[in-house]
Amino acid sequence: MAADKKQVEQITDMESDFAQWYTDVCRKAELIDYTSVKGMFILRPYGYAIWENIQRELDGMFKKTGHQNVSMPMLIPESLLQKEKDHVEGFAPECAWVTVGGGEELEERLCIRPTSETLFCEHWANILHSWRDLPILYNQWCSVLRWEKSSRPFLRHREFLWQEGHTLHATAEEAVRETEQQLEAYASLCEDFLAMPVVKGLKTDKEKFAGAERTYTIECMMHDRKALQNGTSHYFGDGFARAFGITFADRENTLRHPHQTSWGFATRTIGGLIMTHGDNSGLVMPPRVAPVQIAVIPVASHKPGVNEKAGELLRALSGAGLRANADFSDNSPGWKFAEHEMKGVPLRIEIGPRDIEAGTCLAVRRDSGEKLSLPLDGVAERAGLLLGDIQRSLFEKARRNLDGHTYAAKSAGEVREIIEGGGGFVKAMWCGGAECEAAMKDAAGVSSRCMPFEQERLSDACAVCGKPAKSMVVWGVAY
Amino acid sequence: MAADKKQVEQITDMESDFAQWYTDVCRKAELIDYTSVKGMFILRPYGYAIWENIQRELDGMFKKTGHQNVSMPMLIPESLLQKEKDHVEGFAPECAWVTVGGGEELEERLCIRPTSETLFCEHWANILHSWRDLPILYNQWCSVLRWEKSSRPFLRHREFLWQEGHTLHATAEEAVRETEQQLEAYASLCEDFLAMPVVKGLKTDKEKFAGAERTYTIECMMHDRKALQNGTSHYFGDGFARAFGITFADRENTLRHPHQTSWGFATRTIGGLIMTHGDNSGLVMPPRVAPVQIAVIPVASHKPGVNEKAGELLRALSGAGLRANADFSDNSPGWKFAEHEMKGVPLRIEIGPRDIEAGTCLAVRRDSGEKLSLPLDGVAERAGLLLGDIQRSLFEKARRNLDGHTYAAKSAGEVREIIEGGGGFVKAMWCGGAECEAAMKDAAGVSSRCMPFEQERLSDACAVCGKPAKSMVVWGVAY
Repeated sequence: MAADKKQVEQITDMESDFAQWYTDVCRKAELIDYTSVKGMFILRPYGYAIWENIQRELDGMFKKTGHQNVSMPMLIPESLLQKEKDHVEGFAPECAWVTVGGGEELEERLCIRPTSETLFCEHWANILHSWRDLPILYNQWCSVLRWEKSSRPFLRHREFLWQEGHTLHATAEEAVRETEQQLEAYASLCEDFLAMPVVKGLKTDKEKFAGAERTYTIECMMHDRKALQNGTSHYFGDGFARAFGITFADRENTLRHPHQTSWGFATRTIGGLIMTHGDNSGLVMPPRVAPVQIAVIPVASHKPGVNEKAGELLRALSGAGLRANADFSDNSPGWKFAEHEMKGVPLRIEIGPRDIEAGTCLAVRRDSGEKLSLPLDGVAERAGLLLGDIQRSLFEKARRNLDGHTYAAKSAGEVREIIEGGGGFVKAMWCGGAECEAAMKDAAGVSSRCMPFEQERLSDACAVCGKPAKSMVVWGVAY
Repeated sequence: MAADKKQVEQITDMESDFAQWYTDVCRKAELIDYTSVKGMFILRPYGYAIWENIQRELDGMFKKTGHQNVSMPMLIPESLLQKEKDHVEGFAPECAWVTVGGGEELEERLCIRPTSETLFCEHWANILHSWRDLPILYNQWCSVLRWEKSSRPFLRHREFLWQEGHTLHATAEEAVRETEQQLEAYASLCEDFLAMPVVKGLKTDKEKFAGAERTYTIECMMHDRKALQNGTSHYFGDGFARAFGITFADRENTLRHPHQTSWGFATRTIGGLIMTHGDNSGLVMPPRVAPVQIAVIPVASHKPGVNEKAGELLRALSGAGLRANADFSDNSPGWKFAEHEMKGVPLRIEIGPRDIEAGTCLAVRRDSGEKLSLPLDGVAERAGLLLGDIQRSLFEKARRNLDGHTYAAKSAGEVREIIEGGGGFVKAMWCGGAECEAAMKDAAGVSSRCMPFEQERLSDACAVCGKPAKSMVVWGVAY
């Protein structure tokens, strides 16, 4: 980058090196920056603005269904983390420990939260008394730490931003309904807001959350046909409640343990957005989540009246509630086009002297490159309709990718052939045995993504051992 | 608390024990809960909802003036923290250190951010190139850790929520303007939104932020006449930029160091809200920040039509954009009154069979206890006006407390007499010497709160040493 002028730089083609293309987009669309601590990333203004839009949407959904936000501490005493056995076994290897505070060695070391079930449980043991207090429907927006060996922007951070919902219910049925409702909220966010089609299902025992009875998941397919787990929702039964001594008096004044859920959605979804919609010119943002929906670019802006008209246009768009900006900098129009393409702005509107004379402007779609002349009169309404069309087109394109690369297989060998032949999601029957799950992984290099809600009876036999099948599993290579 | 029914419990009178009254309100208005880690608190839904309202208001102000949100990591390598000498001296004693991650001793220990200047500086050294990149106007919402010895809800947490703004500018003048602009934003938030009058001023060298050239502050007076520092804004000059090697090419292509600011506002303001407006029945929330502005309470709700009418009333109020709720629980009206009083809901509206017959409802102001019969027809408009009046009354009452307990003194002895005689803010002239500042503290038990923008020439002599005075200082006992 020259010291006196920013340049939009070339990025690697996704066909030649998908991983490098991804990293290039993260850096050059100014979503992220690296730090001197491995695995810890900076979300730059454009990347954080995407997260803010996701937050606003999800937070609204949570509040509509009666959830309340709270703030828990970031540190968990080691003894508290250890109270639920499966949970600590799952998370202890990835913990970061605070051992010194205020210049002194601590008596007990404190873990930076990898997730907050234990903190919520400690609190609930204090505040829950009666069936009248239930359900308790809490959520918090925060960051968590998991000290993983490898890291990639958005997909795997040692520290990442997320929301974690935690709820308590009088009955198992109600808790399961909550778990499913929140999965549906994530699915709706992905499909309707992020234009990312999902496969909804249940995790196998091997893949479920540490301490959960059931984990529900939504799985998305990326451009390279790998899977991205994009939001999970867990039903805990009363296991944590027993471990933490959480009880309530029911209507008959009998002490009982409540049933619990948790569910989380993280910034890794931004990695999914990039790999679902991006192309060789950079990001492609679905309009509903885009920080900037329309970039107004004055052409021949030195000519009298051009910047004024571009300003009017901007006000008309903004006034209609569209997220628009205008680039009045002295960079060339070509440079501006490339920059807004890199950032995936859904619609670019160019306006120059000839457009002004004709009472029109030129709209260019980021998704298709299509150019349309729009009358300036009523431009905001037409632009709004175009944005709606772009949102739908992106979803349909992603849906075609998912449907077009979802296969059925009858054996581990067939699964391997599909994965080696370009990859995708592979449906296959499963006996329910952990050995067969491990064997499939060894044979085909895939993991079980989920047992989808939409079950099919492809055959009666497990694709690995041939014994009677219990359910259909979707297999894939995961991020 | 009985297992089958919540009770609104008595709280300590503020006249008999102000500190206990404060703690009682924090607990019994369900703002906060303690945890097993000293100094780490839980913000419960009602407490967090207050913070969300403050966030929304401040975030809107920041964005209007061109600031962008970002997210920095929570961990700072020790070597990075040490790059600016005054800064590390100020913060190192309060650091919490991560020494183990992923089961291994770390090569370099990592501090949980007590504040993030060093992280922003490291990032800026990477991304700043040209005068075209300036100003950089960033903000982040996060929590920070300071391992203090003592702790109190909201006022002193080891972990607290805040925003920290960090900006870079081409010139010192512009950076100073930014520092002052952001202080004005805090002052406006306090006065217009939180109904807390402020004294604006400059900190003395002793009281300024570690590493800053200047620290601006707003100081509020509590019921007990102690001072609460409520938002600070710092001008750093180019000291950090030099220490971190941050440069930009100016218009003549000469490399220069930018000038820097930072400014922060924290959840401690909620402690200030409690101690400014609260009374012996609990919290008193100014309507603009109140999570619930109006509580609708059906009276004799077993009578036909009462709950229906209360529901209609609720919809009318909510439909007009007021934050209203209705309590249809089977608790007694008296219990509900006490609970909403404890939580400081600005307006309670009671509706029973006789009101319905008369086409009215009964509004009860939390601030004054005044009762007003309101026609149901047009009730939302009248309720809105009442809320505006409550907001103004609370501000005026707090203003009277501040003005009525701000004194002038000519000697340290006079300052001590005022503090011992009930306390308040004491204005006195100062020579600018650190010795006199320390001597005043020893003599009167006060610290310098600030050199207010509105300077008066009370005399020509320093109240401590009698030498020529340079400025007027406001002294007080601080939280």
